[in-house]
Amino acid sequence: VSKGKIFLVGLGPGAADQMSGRARQAIAESAVVVGYAKYLDLIKDLLDGKESIRKGMTQEVDRCVAACELARDGKTVALVSSGDIGVYGMAGLTYEVLLQSGWTPGDGIGVELIPGITALSACASLVGAPLGHDFCTISLSDLLTPWPVIAQRLEAAGRGDFVIALYNPRSGRRQGQLVEARRILLRDRRPDTPVAIVHSAYRERQSVQLSTLEAMTDCDIGMLSTVLIGNSSTYFDAGLMITPRGYGRKYADLTGEVKEGERSGRSLSMGLGGWKACARRFLRDNQSHSLRQVARYFDVPSGEVLEAICEAGDKDPAGVYAAASIRPGKEADVLEAARDWGRLRAVVRNEAGAVSELLLHAIDFSRRGDWLNLENEHFHLHVNWSRVHRAWMLRRGDDLRSLYFTDERQDVVFNLSLVRKEGELEEAAVQCFEQAWNQLCVGPKQ
Amino acid sequence: VSKGKIFLVGLGPGAADQMSGRARQAIAESAVVVGYAKYLDLIKDLLDGKESIRKGMTQEVDRCVAACELARDGKTVALVSSGDIGVYGMAGLTYEVLLQSGWTPGDGIGVELIPGITALSACASLVGAPLGHDFCTISLSDLLTPWPVIAQRLEAAGRGDFVIALYNPRSGRRQGQLVEARRILLRDRRPDTPVAIVHSAYRERQSVQLSTLEAMTDCDIGMLSTVLIGNSSTYFDAGLMITPRGYGRKYADLTGEVKEGERSGRSLSMGLGGWKACARRFLRDNQSHSLRQVARYFDVPSGEVLEAICEAGDKDPAGVYAAASIRPGKEADVLEAARDWGRLRAVVRNEAGAVSELLLHAIDFSRRGDWLNLENEHFHLHVNWSRVHRAWMLRRGDDLRSLYFTDERQDVVFNLSLVRKEGELEEAAVQCFEQAWNQLCVGPKQ
Repeated sequence: VSKGKIFLVGLGPGAADQMSGRARQAIAESAVVVGYAKYLDLIKDLLDGKESIRKGMTQEVDRCVAACELARDGKTVALVSSGDIGVYGMAGLTYEVLLQSGWTPGDGIGVELIPGITALSACASLVGAPLGHDFCTISLSDLLTPWPVIAQRLEAAGRGDFVIALYNPRSGRRQGQLVEARRILLRDRRPDTPVAIVHSAYRERQSVQLSTLEAMTDCDIGMLSTVLIGNSSTYFDAGLMITPRGYGRKYADLTGEVKEGERSGRSLSMGLGGWKACARRFLRDNQSHSLRQVARYFDVPSGEVLEAICEAGDKDPAGVYAAASIRPGKEADVLEAARDWGRLRAVVRNEAGAVSELLLHAIDFSRRGDWLNLENEHFHLHVNWSRVHRAWMLRRGDDLRSLYFTDERQDVVFNLSLVRKEGELEEAAVQCFEQAWNQLCVGPKQ
Repeated sequence: VSKGKIFLVGLGPGAADQMSGRARQAIAESAVVVGYAKYLDLIKDLLDGKESIRKGMTQEVDRCVAACELARDGKTVALVSSGDIGVYGMAGLTYEVLLQSGWTPGDGIGVELIPGITALSACASLVGAPLGHDFCTISLSDLLTPWPVIAQRLEAAGRGDFVIALYNPRSGRRQGQLVEARRILLRDRRPDTPVAIVHSAYRERQSVQLSTLEAMTDCDIGMLSTVLIGNSSTYFDAGLMITPRGYGRKYADLTGEVKEGERSGRSLSMGLGGWKACARRFLRDNQSHSLRQVARYFDVPSGEVLEAICEAGDKDPAGVYAAASIRPGKEADVLEAARDWGRLRAVVRNEAGAVSELLLHAIDFSRRGDWLNLENEHFHLHVNWSRVHRAWMLRRGDDLRSLYFTDERQDVVFNLSLVRKEGELEEAAVQCFEQAWNQLCVGPKQ
């Protein structure tokens, strides 16, 4: 028996001339074409003399099973879908069905995946250049994905300032998902963020609506729409939606000279190797700023600023700040040392906007399993010590001596500071602090 | 003078038969083809009899300016790039250059964007079906993007469990970015997360390496590589990388029956309209769980669980819990009412693993501008009241009466609970609590 073959074919947006040569060729080589009825209508001209198997929209599993059975009978089958068949497409499901039946690549049925132009690219091409920088796709369909998963992705996409393409934004039965998506994204993005809604790109009823994040739910949006939501730098100009790649950060104007401090073909001064030096310059120029203010200015966790301060050198100081990191494994030792520092202020702060400052003595800490506890009649402090990844010592001029504990994300778990008496730090406590710095820190810098 | 025209052409991955018909046609219609020298080499066969302008890799601005000048002279120009020209491509920059010179669409030079198969689709097609669910792209190049922005996107992509495609992962001068990316992603993703590295897809030196998040930095990765990183459900099977779309959530097995409680063609029971009922069922089945444990189980902010409890009905109770939300605008009134509740426990908790519990009387709160403060000789509590978006009252059987304040993200800012005396809540305090519930809550349910 001759071996069957499955072509997994992405048709692109729909118009015949948006299909790749390889996709046309694969369909031509196939005896049978399987697909959602509407997709087969898009390629009517290519189906002459072929068997075609038309399925309903939700019959994805049926389509795969049909294709696999035909291939097992030795036939060459094209399983087609619009866009790229690998993107939310039938490719994964077909592989899953095949693998579950014991198939492996190179053994029995041949499988070739032929990529296509995704809906993402097709829709974007009609409205300008919205995908000029990092983007993500989120399907709002909860037919197979729990809503909490979708909500968390929306939240992450908002926080990460990704350009967002929403797939399956709305249908007759699913009206609330888009409203929820808008609500979640408005937490991080301006109401006037550009939005484009593209309907049936490169097909007969193609339409484009330009809107905003605030107003998008009032637009005509259905199953065949893709919603493109800009990031914080996306703009509309002359009816085009543009997400700049960032040439303006390096060049004085688009056709002009490289800006001072930047080099063509090299990382930005704010790149991986340089941004901490920028943070130190900022600390020198803004001596009254708190660690937290600097972290917010650069939009990084506070631990990253601590690291920038640690890396300061004689020629590149961090203003009034100096810091050192506790040697790995010695995080508990510094807490032990703090027993001699007298009264301390412990700070627990959350991102939602609450801060508690507790006056305590480190001598009152006790450990139980993963937890570091301090309980008295006024307050309890509990720290999940297993979350403490690094510890840091921080000096600010004469008026602050602190110990910071950060987690793996470089977020602050809690911090401890020497308490001032009559406006000044106690000399004995400061001496103990400096002693711990010398004994416990990596490459102590005085 | 005849009007010039610019075709912005995405060539797809490289092989001639992966190009769309429209892209070939546009090049055929053009008198001049402008592009990065290596991309022009890919389409040598199409350049016969045409002027071609070859530029270096970092000369993006030059390429756009050249194309615009030629079009102004009345020529038809194809500006080409590999993949999709709209994805991190030259399309945005060209529009920016044109718009800055006063051009508008439909006026003077014509511009047509012809999408192509992105690197994303091309690379994915060679390794299986890794893009079967929500994905994002992140460029690791810090030539135009500050590192803190890139780091934040990596963090968000990790938290949001997106499949990730890294563009520009490594070059001769940029070695550390991929190491940092790995470190950031390992916070949220397992070390054995499948990774595929695709090099020169559909070109002469095409190669595929399968690896893991842990080991990927040891692979051969350069400027022409795309790194595909799976999400938490991506797996390798028989050398294929698959991200399932989630059919397993609805169907007993891939070819089998719909699972109990689910319906074909409808949202999952855990969909937007149903997941809160699932949360209430979970609360009935797990009566000893805290609010926070339930929130973690469903991976949602605690405010979402409070909402699920609020929406409980007689036939659909939330186990030992009952909740109600304070009427909008009355959030401060409930704090006023709490003055009569005697001793309270305030809890401030952060995501990094620290919890502080403060024993206080609400009568000691004072407001100053946006801040709600309580200061005594043992501790200070500061709450950024402008961040408080909603307030909630919560009962748990006979042993807990709490007030929760949440921010716009539904995260808890802080909470206040009645304190037990000798193991029991004080009756007078409970009565005051119930009175506030009746007076201040939306649609109070007894």
